[in-house]
Order: sequence, then C-alpha cells, then structure tokens
Amino acid sequence: MLEKTMRMNYLYDFYQSLLTPKQKSYMSLYYLDDYSLGEIADEYEVSRQAVYDNIKRTEAMLEEYEAKLLLFEKAQQRSLLLNKLGNLADEVSDKHVQQQLIETIASLEKLD
Amino acid sequence: MLEKTMRMNYLYDFYQSLLTPKQKSYMSLYYLDDYSLGEIADEYEVSRQAVYDNIKRTEAMLEEYEAKLLLFEKAQQRSLLLNKLGNLADEVSDKHVQQQLIETIASLEKLD
Repeated sequence: MLEKTMRMNYLYDFYQSLLTPKQKSYMSLYYLDDYSLGEIADEYEVSRQAVYDNIKRTEAMLEEYEAKLLLFEKAQQRSLLLNKLGNLADEVSDKHVQQQLIETIASLEKLD
Repeated sequence: MLEKTMRMNYLYDFYQSLLTPKQKSYMSLYYLDDYSLGEIADEYEVSRQAVYDNIKRTEAMLEEYEAKLLLFEKAQQRSLLLNKLGNLADEVSDKHVQQQLIETIASLEKLD
C-alpha cells in the first residue's frame, strides 16, 4: 500500500467520527474498499469531479485534525512504548507478576 | 471545585486546539482564572449575555467532541491501567528490569 494511502487509513480511523455521513461514505469506499473515483461517482450519481473535490477536502480536514490533536502521532509513540514494556515483561522472573503485567499491557493496547 | 467545573477543565485541556481564539479566551478566563461572566464582558466590551451564550455553546461543543472522540474517558482508563502497571513494577525483584519498567511507564504517562 502506498504511504499516503496508509496514512489516510489511519487518520480516517482516528477522526471518522468528526466527518459527515457523505464524507465517511466516499472515504471508506475510496480508501478502504479501493473503489475508483468514477465508481463512487456512478454509485452516488454525481460527477467524478464532485467526488474528487469532496475527498480532497476531507483529506485536508483529517490532516488539520491530526495537526491539532496528534492522535495518530501519539498512538504510534504509545505503541513503541507498549512494545518495550512487553519485552521487559518477558524478562520478569516471577510468573504471577509477569502474567499480570502482560494482561495490563494488553488492556492498554486495546485503548487505541 | 464543583464536578462540572472539573470536567470542563479536563475537556478544555483535551479539545482546546479545536476552539476559536475567542472561545479559548472566554473559557480560559471563566474556568481556569475564575473570572465572572460580568468581568469577562467588561474586559471584551460585550454584553454579559453574549459571554454567557458563547461559553454555553463552547461547553456543548466540548461535550460533543468528547462524545465522538472519548479522549478524556480513555485518558482516565489509561491512567488507572498505568497505576496498576506501576504497582506491578514495584513487585519486580530484578532492579534493572524494574527501573526500565518505571521509566517506560513514566514516558507513557507523559503522552496524555
């Protein structure tokens, strides 16, 4: 997958709740289901240009939200730190403490 | 501090980057610096009612962002889990592993 497509997938994941239903439909067809602009235009009976403009505006909105809230950036940093914690937990000799560390780390991973 | 004031302080912390400069000024004077509505009105040479309406709308916006993104809710859950990790780290007998666990947990705490 191209880097930009991956980034948009992530940003969409984090900020989709802030988009309108139409923005969500177009983005999800284009980025998650790999529809072409023309196919989306046919589906919604609008021009290809209208779909293109909407998706470009939505991409810009997602980047603005990320610039302001940094949810993707922080999630990446958190993921690295949680991996490090997981490796440290592997080195703990007391199996009971180790098990609880691993479970708590897993709960933290689920929050992002 | 009243519960609602505390909640607004937290929501403001998480979502202030999404507010306009005027919204930020009013909210910060009212909730952080404890100005009265009348004092803010005097400061900005607008009516007390205008300040009140702006703050009420901003409070509603903050609650809408929280309903959609759950940043405060997740930060609270994360904080409980990080406390639990800290307590588990205290039980680790290998001091080197313990020290690295504690540092990594501290880095995670700083991310919220």
